[in-house]
Amino acid sequence: MQFAGSHILSVTQFERADVERIFAVADRMQPYAHRERVTKVLDGAILGSMFFEPSTRTRVSFGSAFNLLGGEVRETTGFENSAIAKGESLYDTARVLSGYSDVIAMRHPAEGSVAEFAAASRVPVINGGDGANEHPSQALLDLYTIKKELAGRGRGIDQLRIAMVGDLRYGRTVHSLCKLLCLFKGVQVVLVSPQELCMPPAIVEELREAGHDVMTSEVLEASIAHVDIVYSTRIQEERFSSQQEADLYRGRFRLNQSIYTQHCEPNTVIMHPLPRDSRDTARELDDDLNDNPNLAIFRQTDNGVLVRMALFALVLDVVEQVDAHARDVNWYTAGRF
Amino acid sequence: MQFAGSHILSVTQFERADVERIFAVADRMQPYAHRERVTKVLDGAILGSMFFEPSTRTRVSFGSAFNLLGGEVRETTGFENSAIAKGESLYDTARVLSGYSDVIAMRHPAEGSVAEFAAASRVPVINGGDGANEHPSQALLDLYTIKKELAGRGRGIDQLRIAMVGDLRYGRTVHSLCKLLCLFKGVQVVLVSPQELCMPPAIVEELREAGHDVMTSEVLEASIAHVDIVYSTRIQEERFSSQQEADLYRGRFRLNQSIYTQHCEPNTVIMHPLPRDSRDTARELDDDLNDNPNLAIFRQTDNGVLVRMALFALVLDVVEQVDAHARDVNWYTAGRF
Amino acid sequence: MQFAGSHILSVTQFERADVERIFAVADRMQPYAHRERVTKVLDGAILGSMFFEPSTRTRVSFGSAFNLLGGEVRETTGFENSAIAKGESLYDTARVLSGYSDVIAMRHPAEGSVAEFAAASRVPVINGGDGANEHPSQALLDLYTIKKELAGRGRGIDQLRIAMVGDLRYGRTVHSLCKLLCLFKGVQVVLVSPQELCMPPAIVEELREAGHDVMTSEVLEASIAHVDIVYSTRIQEERFSSQQEADLYRGRFRLNQSIYTQHCEPNTVIMHPLPRDSRDTARELDDDLNDNPNLAIFRQTDNGVLVRMALFALVLDVVEQVDAHARDVNWYTAGRF
Repeated sequence: MQFAGSHILSVTQFERADVERIFAVADRMQPYAHRERVTKVLDGAILGSMFFEPSTRTRVSFGSAFNLLGGEVRETTGFENSAIAKGESLYDTARVLSGYSDVIAMRHPAEGSVAEFAAASRVPVINGGDGANEHPSQALLDLYTIKKELAGRGRGIDQLRIAMVGDLRYGRTVHSLCKLLCLFKGVQVVLVSPQELCMPPAIVEELREAGHDVMTSEVLEASIAHVDIVYSTRIQEERFSSQQEADLYRGRFRLNQSIYTQHCEPNTVIMHPLPRDSRDTARELDDDLNDNPNLAIFRQTDNGVLVRMALFALVLDVVEQVDAHARDVNWYTAGRF
Repeated sequence: MQFAGSHILSVTQFERADVERIFAVADRMQPYAHRERVTKVLDGAILGSMFFEPSTRTRVSFGSAFNLLGGEVRETTGFENSAIAKGESLYDTARVLSGYSDVIAMRHPAEGSVAEFAAASRVPVINGGDGANEHPSQALLDLYTIKKELAGRGRGIDQLRIAMVGDLRYGRTVHSLCKLLCLFKGVQVVLVSPQELCMPPAIVEELREAGHDVMTSEVLEASIAHVDIVYSTRIQEERFSSQQEADLYRGRFRLNQSIYTQHCEPNTVIMHPLPRDSRDTARELDDDLNDNPNLAIFRQTDNGVLVRMALFALVLDVVEQVDAHARDVNWYTAGRF
Repeated sequence: MQFAGSHILSVTQFERADVERIFAVADRMQPYAHRERVTKVLDGAILGSMFFEPSTRTRVSFGSAFNLLGGEVRETTGFENSAIAKGESLYDTARVLSGYSDVIAMRHPAEGSVAEFAAASRVPVINGGDGANEHPSQALLDLYTIKKELAGRGRGIDQLRIAMVGDLRYGRTVHSLCKLLCLFKGVQVVLVSPQELCMPPAIVEELREAGHDVMTSEVLEASIAHVDIVYSTRIQEERFSSQQEADLYRGRFRLNQSIYTQHCEPNTVIMHPLPRDSRDTARELDDDLNDNPNLAIFRQTDNGVLVRMALFALVLDVVEQVDAHARDVNWYTAGRF
């Protein structure tokens, strides 16, 4: 695809080469995100950060990514946007707000709303999550993490062996990740969930049509024995009709250091889209894994900054200028990464 | 007036020469707002954005305008400002907050509160709306839009023919616009509203004292037949005592493409302070006007950025330095304006 | 202490030399805070401002201080941070959020939470208040104000005579200030409060162990007759179990110009942590003191910016670089300070 001036709305808009291009640019962002170098390539540019649904980590990650490229951020959070309450169409909102910035990152509770907004926007829009629908930068950072974690192990995304564990029905991130995996070859996917929270059949079908090997299971231990990645997820309580129903599933699949040692191959990578539920009744990833160097969950969120920097640099077409506007960091940064 | 260091609180503080000065400066801001050039003239300056009443478009417009001049924005929204709840006077609030920034843009629900705040502030304060009272930057952007739209038609603000339509009683923007029009000559104003929502008599009197020609009407079609500008407004539902009362008036005056074609002179400009109410029961400006090149409503909000940049540049006295701190934009901006 | 890379969590972490170092750096920040000079020493750095409890003045003061050093601010306010509601541990929150910025300023309603967060953070954390526990930058700015106000009077913190008045039980700021005073010599402290709102005995004990002279009183006039500083505080209504209980104490100790003239030594300095309660039933510092040049309450909040700039410069180790990245201010600033 042509990135300059494009909206980033869905993982389905990418071909394999696009994903690889994003990852290559993300790699080049590392010195800036890791505070070795400062770039001002977007000095004077403005990000409109429109989070009509609350989010701390995604919102701040987008904002920091833009700051790391030298740009400014103008932020709107929640539905203080009473204009919509006064009957304003999403078309009008988009026409107006896109006059205030050079690019927009947007989250909205209604499925499809970000695409509708983008259609009327005069500047590129990056989807930061539209309800249960899409959250493409999350899927990209997950896949980018897989690639980086496995690189040191001599393995790649082709021929990947991955177990996805937990709430595969409501977990938006595993859906999008599966779609991205369809761009690659020979992947083995083990889907571990209660029957009632299984991966939607349409997505399983897509994986199989891509030539991937899909297994399903309700047992954690055997399922994680021969994989490169265990991708654990939280029970999405807020999507259930009652707390009692959520309680049925919470804590069903718990990975801790002892199970890891006993069942996993050495250096199996542990991922999670976060937040992980650390309450006693949940603990899908136990705190005793925090010292396990294969726990990649915080490298995942760090990678989110790299991927979002890459998306901004691509849609604003400044990739080749980043290094030319750079200098060394001049403040204390020891021990950060 | 002397702009440097002054507060901008009310349209009544301006003489004609002041308004023309603001518009001349706004014109010079266009290359920056339209992303052809970047200026850093206010690099290091801080805008305190204090919106004690929610607002997305005005708040972001002020913030982006300041960013476009190279400055930083520190924002406060809503009444998280619990200090006031703890019995703090507006005097104290102003003394404290004005120590944190170089200029303040402020909205407050109570009439007169921004002027009271300004009296104690140590830095210039720009009124972003104080209840039903004043919102000077909106009136300025409306008049600036009229000037720009008519310039290409060989007409100006003197001898302007304008119809104001809708809720002329509660609509703050038409009140302020009328006051500004009193600085000019030979204006014909047609006021189209239900009897109960008519323009306050005091404002009609001011227009007449300025030598303007004022007509009133309850019929849309005839009233818009011989004007340069149709300025439509939304029924300000939130000001009525009941929803039923608002329902009596909503949808009373609807302009659409068919009525426009049949009744208006060619190239009659359509304006609206936004948000427009696009619900079926309202539609004061129909969506089928979106492709009409004379629909100026989004150029209006774009002009808001120019006018706010001009106000900041004037009160901080950097107008003559703007171009000296400038360079070309280096990122992708195609098709924005 | 070693400032570079350190957390600032509690006044108890400082020795006298540390406090003096902070004040010396704060002095050097004055040309920047007073808008004579602009520095860009932290150009490209990001402050994560995490205010999980509402605050306008402390939040904006930290943000402006960082902007004045040339850095960017990414802000989170309130508990939009629903990740915690979804069972995320403070450890996880800290690991994630510390990947988005170079330093964090944080307020949190739970005592001890900021220290717990800091333990997992990868970047320095400055405590902006954790419940009723600590608020070290407030204590520092109070003491810094005392030092500056008395410098012109030929007096210093050693041998200081201070009266603390009002709600000494729930007022967090007086507790912290007393702890800092323990680092100095020969201080006379008069504690003026209702019996039920007296200074906690443990703190009185600390003052005495430091060799200070502590008196208690329930009468305002006699207590402020021979002091350098009157430090007045608001009744912390929100900490009482009922409004009726708070009403018992509100308005008990009122200082106004007449009492000041009659009882205080000339040039006695009046301080208050703000907000002061200006409602008729309270008025611990009457508005008629506003023209008294010894009313230092707004210089106090201005000093807060200097102290916070100093803390940022110290923990990010850029003190010696500040002036090298500076230039004169180029916008209108007359009459600000």
